[in-house]
Amino acid sequence: MAAAAAASAGGSRASLDELAAVCGAAVVGDGARRISRVRTLDAADAADLSFLTSGSYLEAARRSRAGALLVGPAHRGEFGDRDLLVADDPYLALASILGWLHPLARPAAGVHPTAVVGERCEIAASATVGPYCVLGDDVEVGERVWLESHVDVGSRCVIGEDAWLHPQVVLYPGTVLGQSVEVHSGVVLGADGFGFASEGARPVKLPQVGRVRLGDRVEIGANSAIDRATLEDTVVGEDTKIDNLVQVGHNVQIGAGSILCGQAGIAGSARLGRGVVLAGQSGVGGHLEVGDGVRVGAAAAVLGSVAAGETVCGVPAIPMSRWRRSAAVYARLDELRKRVGALQREVDRLVSGSGDEAATGERSD
Amino acid sequence: MAAAAAASAGGSRASLDELAAVCGAAVVGDGARRISRVRTLDAADAADLSFLTSGSYLEAARRSRAGALLVGPAHRGEFGDRDLLVADDPYLALASILGWLHPLARPAAGVHPTAVVGERCEIAASATVGPYCVLGDDVEVGERVWLESHVDVGSRCVIGEDAWLHPQVVLYPGTVLGQSVEVHSGVVLGADGFGFASEGARPVKLPQVGRVRLGDRVEIGANSAIDRATLEDTVVGEDTKIDNLVQVGHNVQIGAGSILCGQAGIAGSARLGRGVVLAGQSGVGGHLEVGDGVRVGAAAAVLGSVAAGETVCGVPAIPMSRWRRSAAVYARLDELRKRVGALQREVDRLVSGSGDEAATGERSD
Amino acid sequence: MAAAAAASAGGSRASLDELAAVCGAAVVGDGARRISRVRTLDAADAADLSFLTSGSYLEAARRSRAGALLVGPAHRGEFGDRDLLVADDPYLALASILGWLHPLARPAAGVHPTAVVGERCEIAASATVGPYCVLGDDVEVGERVWLESHVDVGSRCVIGEDAWLHPQVVLYPGTVLGQSVEVHSGVVLGADGFGFASEGARPVKLPQVGRVRLGDRVEIGANSAIDRATLEDTVVGEDTKIDNLVQVGHNVQIGAGSILCGQAGIAGSARLGRGVVLAGQSGVGGHLEVGDGVRVGAAAAVLGSVAAGETVCGVPAIPMSRWRRSAAVYARLDELRKRVGALQREVDRLVSGSGDEAATGERSD
Repeated sequence: MAAAAAASAGGSRASLDELAAVCGAAVVGDGARRISRVRTLDAADAADLSFLTSGSYLEAARRSRAGALLVGPAHRGEFGDRDLLVADDPYLALASILGWLHPLARPAAGVHPTAVVGERCEIAASATVGPYCVLGDDVEVGERVWLESHVDVGSRCVIGEDAWLHPQVVLYPGTVLGQSVEVHSGVVLGADGFGFASEGARPVKLPQVGRVRLGDRVEIGANSAIDRATLEDTVVGEDTKIDNLVQVGHNVQIGAGSILCGQAGIAGSARLGRGVVLAGQSGVGGHLEVGDGVRVGAAAAVLGSVAAGETVCGVPAIPMSRWRRSAAVYARLDELRKRVGALQREVDRLVSGSGDEAATGERSD
Repeated sequence: MAAAAAASAGGSRASLDELAAVCGAAVVGDGARRISRVRTLDAADAADLSFLTSGSYLEAARRSRAGALLVGPAHRGEFGDRDLLVADDPYLALASILGWLHPLARPAAGVHPTAVVGERCEIAASATVGPYCVLGDDVEVGERVWLESHVDVGSRCVIGEDAWLHPQVVLYPGTVLGQSVEVHSGVVLGADGFGFASEGARPVKLPQVGRVRLGDRVEIGANSAIDRATLEDTVVGEDTKIDNLVQVGHNVQIGAGSILCGQAGIAGSARLGRGVVLAGQSGVGGHLEVGDGVRVGAAAAVLGSVAAGETVCGVPAIPMSRWRRSAAVYARLDELRKRVGALQREVDRLVSGSGDEAATGERSD
Repeated sequence: MAAAAAASAGGSRASLDELAAVCGAAVVGDGARRISRVRTLDAADAADLSFLTSGSYLEAARRSRAGALLVGPAHRGEFGDRDLLVADDPYLALASILGWLHPLARPAAGVHPTAVVGERCEIAASATVGPYCVLGDDVEVGERVWLESHVDVGSRCVIGEDAWLHPQVVLYPGTVLGQSVEVHSGVVLGADGFGFASEGARPVKLPQVGRVRLGDRVEIGANSAIDRATLEDTVVGEDTKIDNLVQVGHNVQIGAGSILCGQAGIAGSARLGRGVVLAGQSGVGGHLEVGDGVRVGAAAAVLGSVAAGETVCGVPAIPMSRWRRSAAVYARLDELRKRVGALQREVDRLVSGSGDEAATGERSD
C-alpha cells in the first residue's frame, strides 16, 4: 500500500457516516463530521479520526485530541459525548477505512520501453512492467500485475493476476506466484537450496532443480529469501504473510494463513501447518513438523516437532507455560545454587551432629 | 543450478546403466530401464528414480512407487526385486546424477548492449555480461564468467574464471573472487565494516579501506553480506558454502570447506578454521578464534574462543553434551526449584526437630 | 568510504608530522618519516603506520615491524626509540588519518543518461544520479548527493545534502533522509510495516500509509530493512549507525547516536532512547521502551521495557551481572540437579534415621 501514501499527504476527506459505511461501524454522535485523515492517538487533532484497539491505550484515548474515535463496543461508553465509530472489531474496521482512504495509485498498463523481455512471454494487456525489468523466456504475467522497476523474472516464471512486485525483486527461473501476491523490494524467490554432499572434506553441491510456489494473497517482506526445492516445490500456502529478512529453506511447506515475523528462519524440509505464527527471530529446524495453529515465541528455536495448537518458547523450544516458569528461575539461578549450597552445609551439619546416632542406628540394625 | 531447471520440465531421459556410469554406482536389476527424472520418494512414479540417503526414510522408500531407487550398500537387500542403483555414498551419487540430468544452460558469451562498462576493464571473450550490469573501471572478468542482469561490479574488482553471479549482486570496489565462485541474488560483498570511534556521544566512522576476497568454489546464498576489511582483507576460504541472509563482519577470516547456514552471523575480526559448521541463526562474537572442524548448534552464540573439533550449543555456547543435559534440566527448572524448596522445609523441620539435641550437642562441646 | 579504496592501492604518502597534524597527535621520534599506508600490526612493514588501540594487543605491537605506531599516552613508554604518534584517543585519531589518506573519490555531478526521472523532481546541480537509477515524481535530491547505480527512489522522497546511496538501494515513496546519510547496497527503506487484522482465520492487511525518516549522519548497512510507519513516521535519530541485515519494524523510534549491530531486530512500535547499543543478533519486542544508553548483549531478546543505563543479556533479557551468574550455573545445571538429588537422599536418610525421634518429638508436643 506504499504507493498509496500520496493520498495521505493530500488529505482525503470523508464524513463519519461514509467511514461507518465503509467498515460496517455504527456512528455515535455527529455522522456529518468531516475527517481529513487517520492518525495515532497522540498525533491526532480535531480534524482527524483516531482509534482504540486495545484497552491498554484507554487513557491515551481519553487524552487524545482526535475529532472522533473508532472503538469497540466495550469502550462505547467511555468517551462522554465525543463522536465515535463503534465497530465489532475496530482493528479490522481500521484496515477497511485506511484502504478506502488510501486507494492504490496504479500506474498505466504497459511494458516500459527499457524492459528487456525474453521470447514467448505472455504479458496481459492490463499488466504493468516497469523500467529496467528483465524477463527471461516463457514468462507468464497475469492481468493487472504490477512489476515496478528493476524486477528480474527468470524463465518460465508464472505470475498470477493482481500480483505486485516492488522494485528489485528477483524471481529465479520457474517460480510460480498465485493471485494478488505482494512481494517487497529485495526479496529473492527461488535461489538454490543449501544442500551439499561431501567428497572427503570438500562440500559437493546437490543441484537444486525444484521450484518455489506461492499461494494467493501471500505477502513477502523486504529482503526475505525463499529457496527453490531440491526436486519438487517449496510451498507457501495462501494468505500467509511473511515479514522482512525471513529465511525459508528448500523443500519447506508452509500452510495457509500463517504469519512469519521479522528474521524468522525455517530450515530445509520443515513442514508448517495452517495458521502457524513464528515470532521475530525464531527458527524451525530442518525436517520437523509444526502443527496447525502452533505459535513460536520470539527468538525461540524449534528443534523437535510440535503438535498442533501448542505455544512454545526458548532454545530448544518448550511449552510456553513451562518456559515462563523456567525463565523466572533462570533469572535468579545463582540464588538457587546458593540455596543448594546453604542446604548442603545445613545437611552436613545435621549429618555430623546426628552422625553418631545415625551410625548407631545403622549399627543397631 | 537454477537455470538448469528447464531440463527438469523437459523430462530428460537416461537408462539406469547410464546413470550408474555417471555416479559410479552398481545396477541391481534392469540396467536398460528408462528414467525420466529424479523425484522424492512420495512424488516418484514408475518413470522416476528416487533415493534413500538415510535409514529413517526406509519405510517411505518401501512405499514409494518409484521405478528405481538409488540406495547405499546397507539397504541393497531391502527392496526385493526392484531395480536399484547401489552407491557407496548415495547422496554424493545423487549430486552427480542431478548435475548430469540438468546441465547448466549457459547464455551466449558477450556483453549485453545495455551494460555500462568503465574504463580499462578486461572482460574475457567467453564471459557473459547481462542486461543492465554496471562495471566500474579496471575490472577483470575471467573466462566463462556469467554476470546475470543488474549486477554491479565496483572498480578494480577481479572475478575468477567460471564465476556465476545471479541478478542483483553487488560487489563494492576492490572485491576479489576466485574461480567457480557462485553468488546468489541480493548478495552484497565489500560494504563498509561496522567500526566507529567515539567523539563524546557521537559515533565517528572508521573508514574501511580493505577488501573482500573469496576463494575458489565459494558459494554465497541470497541476500548475505560480507563486509570489506578495515585495512586488509576479509577472507572466505575455498570450498566454503554460505547460505542465505548470513552476515560476515569486517576482517573475518573463514577457513576452507566451512558451512555457514541461514542467518548465521560472524562479528568483526573473528577467525574460523577449516571445516567449521555454523548451524542456522548461530553467531560468533568479535575477535574470537574458532578452531578447525568446530560445529556450532542452531541459534547458539559463541562468546569465547572454541578449540578445534568441539561441538558447542547455547547462549553462551558450551560443549553440546553439557548443553543437552543443562537444557533438559532447564525444561523443568521450576520443579528443581520446588524440590529445593521442599528440601529446605524438610531440613528446617529436621533442624527444629533435632534442634534441642543439636543445641545440646553444641553446648556439650 | 569504499570508493576511497583506490587511494589505498596507489600508496598515498605522508610524513608523521603531517599525520600528526591531521589527527591532533604528538610525534615522538622522527616527524619526517614517510608513511605509505596504514596496516594492521601483523601486516605492517617499515613503510607503514600501525596502531595500538587496546592493551590486549601490546605484545603484537612490540613484535610488529611497522615503521611507526599510533598509540595512546599510556603506551608511550613501551616502544623504546620507535617512532610514535601519541594521541589521546588513538582510535579516533586513526579514523581521522584514514579519512585523510583515503579521500572519497566522488564522480562528476550530473544525471546519467540512463536514469529515469519522474515529474517535478528537484535535483541539485552538484548531485550525481548514476546509471539506471529510477526516480518517481516530486523527488528532492540535495546538493552533492550521490546515488550510485540502480537506486530506486519512490515518489515524494527527500534526500538531504551529501547523502550517499550505494548501488541497489530502494526508497519507497515518501522516505525522508537527512544530511550526510549513507545507505549501503540492498537496503530497503519504507516497505510496508507488518500489521494484520484477522477476518476469521485469514490475516487482513492494515494499509501502511506512514513514512521512514532518517536523521543527519545516519548510516545503514547492507541489506537492512526499515519499515514505514502505519500512520506517522518510523524515525532513526541523527548519528545512529545501523549494521547489515538489521530489521526495524514499523512505528519504531530510535534515538540519536545509537548503534545497532548486525542482524539485530526491533519489532513494531518499540521506542529506543539515545545512545542505545544493540549487539549482534539481539532483538527488542514490540511496543517496548528501551531507555537512553541501554546496552543489549549479543543474541539477547528484550521482552520487557528496560530502564535507562542498564545492560541486559539473555532470552528474556535480564541485567547482565545476573545473567552472567545464571549462565555460569546453567553451564553445569545437571550437576546442580545431581547435587539436589544427593541432598534429597541424604535428607531422606536423616529423616528415616531420626524419624522416630522426630515423630516422638512431635507426639511429645
